[in-house]
Amino acid sequence: MKHECLGEVNCSVARTWAVIGDRWTMLIIREAFRGTHRFDGFQQRLGVGRNVLSNRLARLTEEGIFERNRYQEAPDRYEYRLTQKGMDLYPVLLTLMRWGDRYKIDEPPVRLYHKDCGELASPELRCSHCGQLVDFHSLSAEYAPDAW
Amino acid sequence: MKHECLGEVNCSVARTWAVIGDRWTMLIIREAFRGTHRFDGFQQRLGVGRNVLSNRLARLTEEGIFERNRYQEAPDRYEYRLTQKGMDLYPVLLTLMRWGDRYKIDEPPVRLYHKDCGELASPELRCSHCGQLVDFHSLSAEYAPDAW
Repeated sequence: MKHECLGEVNCSVARTWAVIGDRWTMLIIREAFRGTHRFDGFQQRLGVGRNVLSNRLARLTEEGIFERNRYQEAPDRYEYRLTQKGMDLYPVLLTLMRWGDRYKIDEPPVRLYHKDCGELASPELRCSHCGQLVDFHSLSAEYAPDAW
Repeated sequence: MKHECLGEVNCSVARTWAVIGDRWTMLIIREAFRGTHRFDGFQQRLGVGRNVLSNRLARLTEEGIFERNRYQEAPDRYEYRLTQKGMDLYPVLLTLMRWGDRYKIDEPPVRLYHKDCGELASPELRCSHCGQLVDFHSLSAEYAPDAW
């Protein structure tokens, strides 16, 4: 199977991976959450090749994760802002960060504070019904007959 | 910058992405969570090329996400089991699934039940301190001076 075909299979993870599952896309999105919005900013911060960056920004815009706004005319220049659909990838970013904090780095370089309670917070996944912590062992998955 | 160098920068997301950020790795891990453990099983389920699969299984084993166990001798055959480090990628999988459920598919093909309360549950991220739901707007990030 080709990677592009993943967008067609009946699996939410695979379809999401067809959008963000490459070497740079999620890091471009991370950079946008950090406040970078312009081509040169992404390029300087990430050190990614201009062709790759250009391609990924176009795809993310087409996908509706970024919205492209012109901020200068003659020559036209654009900035890229996360849409709500893009903002909703924040939980993915947080879980990636937490795993990396635990397994890939000695001293986590980013601390997250919860504005409402003011405390250092490490977000954790809880059941939307009863509020208990959930992990692989506490969830059972029921697959549709045509699930990929 | 080369993708391999991401493993060295001072960012937990980038270092995690250096491990799983390619076209197939997260889907191989997803497949292991679903109960696939053998080379041929991964190959048939995902339809990924054998060379790519072999490379990714070796890398995930080297990384300590999979543990490789021999289940047959002459010829030797191995199965791949998630370690605790691998199991701890489950929150990443769940957040990818939730985003895909919302934006990439009409009828989510997998339903998750929380064993403890018995209810259909969509895991959500809450503050570890006060238990409130968290999103991008409710968290503030503090970066170390040498954060990437």
